[in-house]
Amino acid sequence: MKFVGIDIGGTGIKAGIVNEFGEIIVKRDCMTDSEAGFDKVMQDIFNLVMSLLDESHLTMQEIGSIGVGIPSFINQKGEVTCVNLGWHQVNIVDKLKEMFPTVNTYVENDATVAAIAESHFGSMKGHPIAVMLTLGTGVGGGIIINGIPFTGAHGMASEIGHVVIGENYFNCNCGNNGCFETFCSATAIIKYAQHLLAENKNTSIYAKCEGKLETITAKMVFDAYREEDKIAKQIIQRFKSYLAIGIAGIINTLDPHIIAIGGGVSKSSDIILDGLDTEIRKHILYKNEKFADIVVATLGNDAGIIGAAFLGEKR
Amino acid sequence: MKFVGIDIGGTGIKAGIVNEFGEIIVKRDCMTDSEAGFDKVMQDIFNLVMSLLDESHLTMQEIGSIGVGIPSFINQKGEVTCVNLGWHQVNIVDKLKEMFPTVNTYVENDATVAAIAESHFGSMKGHPIAVMLTLGTGVGGGIIINGIPFTGAHGMASEIGHVVIGENYFNCNCGNNGCFETFCSATAIIKYAQHLLAENKNTSIYAKCEGKLETITAKMVFDAYREEDKIAKQIIQRFKSYLAIGIAGIINTLDPHIIAIGGGVSKSSDIILDGLDTEIRKHILYKNEKFADIVVATLGNDAGIIGAAFLGEKR
Repeated sequence: MKFVGIDIGGTGIKAGIVNEFGEIIVKRDCMTDSEAGFDKVMQDIFNLVMSLLDESHLTMQEIGSIGVGIPSFINQKGEVTCVNLGWHQVNIVDKLKEMFPTVNTYVENDATVAAIAESHFGSMKGHPIAVMLTLGTGVGGGIIINGIPFTGAHGMASEIGHVVIGENYFNCNCGNNGCFETFCSATAIIKYAQHLLAENKNTSIYAKCEGKLETITAKMVFDAYREEDKIAKQIIQRFKSYLAIGIAGIINTLDPHIIAIGGGVSKSSDIILDGLDTEIRKHILYKNEKFADIVVATLGNDAGIIGAAFLGEKR
Repeated sequence: MKFVGIDIGGTGIKAGIVNEFGEIIVKRDCMTDSEAGFDKVMQDIFNLVMSLLDESHLTMQEIGSIGVGIPSFINQKGEVTCVNLGWHQVNIVDKLKEMFPTVNTYVENDATVAAIAESHFGSMKGHPIAVMLTLGTGVGGGIIINGIPFTGAHGMASEIGHVVIGENYFNCNCGNNGCFETFCSATAIIKYAQHLLAENKNTSIYAKCEGKLETITAKMVFDAYREEDKIAKQIIQRFKSYLAIGIAGIINTLDPHIIAIGGGVSKSSDIILDGLDTEIRKHILYKNEKFADIVVATLGNDAGIIGAAFLGEKR
């Protein structure tokens, strides 16, 4: 049996056909034409699926299920409101049923989808209680309990990026102050770099961004860190201090077997993981006990397709 | 079938025989002779159980299981380290097996035990995903998922009282700064009252404690709040602000059907729950969705006995 996984992002849509071992047989992608609206995006998805079937010489009867990951919350009616995609209360569940009437279709939050992929075939395989943290533009969370995704009573669980873990000098987009995401995302790194560079330009980050603070990237900060740049060290140390507090909160609440870190920031995992366990141990209650292994996610950009393909499993 | 539940606290031990409907048929208690050490406390427990059997004309063969709740973490070897009881790595699991060789025995953290009781027979009955928060000397947490207690991969889960939710002017006993417990326990209320009264004695709390700040209780502060005392209002408003942040963190992570508030502070639930939902909604990510019902625990001091009696169920 084969499965279709679709990963809708703010800029691109990735789709693939996946076998029962979690291997992508064929994949395609297209731009997310969010300006053209929901119906156009869904039509593009339909076309992607048809072209995948065509390329792999499969028929719809040979597809076990079609799953979709979206950077959004899906309410219990199947409706999605997503600022990134410009969608307001569109019913994606109904639309998928209409487009693919002969196959079971599933929709889930993208971080939960990535957690499913890592839990089945990647870094979190074999661990019944597992948490995936995606550190990118924001901070996403996916929780696996007893091997299956945990989405809570109303589908709102695992929004770990918006748990308050301290006090920050700026507010989160969500209206809160002190969200995990405002300390530990790529955006947080960039903002804090801009904040410090506005006062102090004696850092290699200033040369890297050619004096244009608005072009600073997280990569520039990590690169400067590798060059022993003092300001970069200050930025990354703050990031890691709060990452330890946030992860300790997850351990004090859920005590998982494993926590996998994915997302763009995880490309600098050598820096992030260095000494992180020691820092986490300071903040957990039972300081002498074994706690979750902290690892880097292994499936990278394919996690979205693979996890979505397996949304139908164990439901 | 009948079950024995034992609730070991820092000052007293409560024990009871409970029927299958969660009703306590007979109960007894004694002081916790923690100075005399682990073996004496366990002997007292044995004597309590024997006297309960005697009083109820039951034999050990008619007892389904014996469960014990303790204010501590039990590691995977069955060992307990508890500052309150003066126990350091004592093996309570082995000791119970030795004392009651013919019956199944169970041990669990007291907040989890209270959550089981409220989930089976009290305020959280019928809700598959439920969180119990005990606001007393500290803040305890118990998590129920799919109707059964969730204790994590290493038994360390649900220590919600030690999740960092902000920055506080004093450190927690656990070494962290900003633990939920340092904002939302009776101790936190008392400490903040003492902190404010050191500077400003123009409050009815000063009369209530007869000028002895070390004798301030949470009840005095709630009583002063009812009298519209300004300082008491400031203390309780701070308490409620952080309670909302902490509960929103639970919702953003676990999205339970229900959250029950127990412990000594919950006696002033009329004050605590007033406007709390509105405050929580400010801090959750999905502000327009239904979230967990926030209720007051209903079993009171009996929750420890009842929950412990049912530790053997669904294991």
